[in-house]
Amino acid sequence: MKVVAENRAHGGRQLVVEHQSSATGTPMRFAIFLPPQAEGGGKLPVVWYLSGLTCTHANVTEKGEYRAACAEHGLILVAPDTSPRGDGVPNDEAYDFGQGAGFYVDATEAPWAEHFRMWTYVTEELPALVAAEYPADMERQAITGHSMGGHGALTVALRHPNRFRSVSAFAPIVAPGQVPWGEKALGGYLGGDRAAWRRHDAVALIEDGARVGELLVDVGTADDFLDTELKPELLERACAEAGIALTLRRQPGYDHSYYFISTFMADHLRWHAERLAR
Amino acid sequence: MKVVAENRAHGGRQLVVEHQSSATGTPMRFAIFLPPQAEGGGKLPVVWYLSGLTCTHANVTEKGEYRAACAEHGLILVAPDTSPRGDGVPNDEAYDFGQGAGFYVDATEAPWAEHFRMWTYVTEELPALVAAEYPADMERQAITGHSMGGHGALTVALRHPNRFRSVSAFAPIVAPGQVPWGEKALGGYLGGDRAAWRRHDAVALIEDGARVGELLVDVGTADDFLDTELKPELLERACAEAGIALTLRRQPGYDHSYYFISTFMADHLRWHAERLAR
Repeated sequence: MKVVAENRAHGGRQLVVEHQSSATGTPMRFAIFLPPQAEGGGKLPVVWYLSGLTCTHANVTEKGEYRAACAEHGLILVAPDTSPRGDGVPNDEAYDFGQGAGFYVDATEAPWAEHFRMWTYVTEELPALVAAEYPADMERQAITGHSMGGHGALTVALRHPNRFRSVSAFAPIVAPGQVPWGEKALGGYLGGDRAAWRRHDAVALIEDGARVGELLVDVGTADDFLDTELKPELLERACAEAGIALTLRRQPGYDHSYYFISTFMADHLRWHAERLAR
Repeated sequence: MKVVAENRAHGGRQLVVEHQSSATGTPMRFAIFLPPQAEGGGKLPVVWYLSGLTCTHANVTEKGEYRAACAEHGLILVAPDTSPRGDGVPNDEAYDFGQGAGFYVDATEAPWAEHFRMWTYVTEELPALVAAEYPADMERQAITGHSMGGHGALTVALRHPNRFRSVSAFAPIVAPGQVPWGEKALGGYLGGDRAAWRRHDAVALIEDGARVGELLVDVGTADDFLDTELKPELLERACAEAGIALTLRRQPGYDHSYYFISTFMADHLRWHAERLAR
């Protein structure tokens, strides 16, 4: 494990760490912000942020505007990469498949199955590493993410109902089995059997009985992907039928970019902090 | 004038605008944030942010974390580019001269004199354009900047003592005539006569009688350029002798990056807002 960048920021430390991943069989990088309270010697709550298509750890680290709120509330924030990368890793020319588009699944199809194991990476390997190396209180975890990473946050939380105190998402893909991005990715990584997709589809998981207590989701009304890829109304309907307390906010005029995310980041982190403090 | 990007952010609008500059003879881009209060029809105070070496308008726009504070205080923020650019514009292979390194002077030396007229651009042309096109209250202006842009902010303010209500800087080059970056740039753009450099050197301007009421300056103690290029102690001495109320804060552990700038951005904007409200 190697710290490849360290910068003092908002009274804490913003690190970028590289390590050899057993899940992906490649070097992986993640960003971790340790707020000023980490100097105190105690353990701190940790927020996982899963990024969207084309992103690395760097997008949210540079543009997410999360550090001020993390410093205020004493939160560690961890931002993994979105796929394995490198010359020996298969890729696809499209922006929405292959490197930068791991979709938080363990691929079963060739040639992806060997390295594209982001589910295991974000649910097992990286949490264990963070717990071992940093003052993260694993009894107080929250998860969020954007777009493909919102899909990741929702599915990871639904399948680990006792792990997270709180779950939110920015412009998530809520039903990948019903939209082009998701059909392409799940079909490519998991094969044509749509039954296997349901464990990586938040709406399907809720239909099949998975539960979380509550959800906070923001979407922008000017998001170009709202009606074709995100379809928050499908989550709204599934949560209503399942009795999940969904707070879905349609933010007027906002798009799919980090200008949208950074606008509501502090609000999400405050919401998580309230639940992590209980 | 053409809006090349527009994103809703923090309740306002983040624009990137391109226009044909008469000062530089090239197309120029700048970023302007219009806070939510701009919808109200009145005029708002404006903060100028001048960027450092290698930057465009985009660095602070993406990494500066200024929009939340601008929205809170009702401030317009304008971030120009750091030089003319393009195929017909002379350049230098070094990062600290030529395109991306205009140093906020009007060059007098060949081949720079034709296009490298950033002094006229940031002190005359761009303010006139912003005043004409946006609800900017030109009676309530503030200026700040980073590194080379801190140099720009200080020299522009010292030579326009009645234009700005407040002046601050992040890690500024305070005495370019005494440090390598400045000697190279001022020598290259203005020629070997060091007397001509003094009007583009904050410490020299103060020594020669220029005054502002007060200054807020942050530097990081882990800034690699602190002792060689920034030398805040020279500004400290000049201000002490001139009776200028300098607040110079040496921030422990911070470097020269946008992690430093974004940490103290909200504090600078609050400080400016207090003075712009008077």
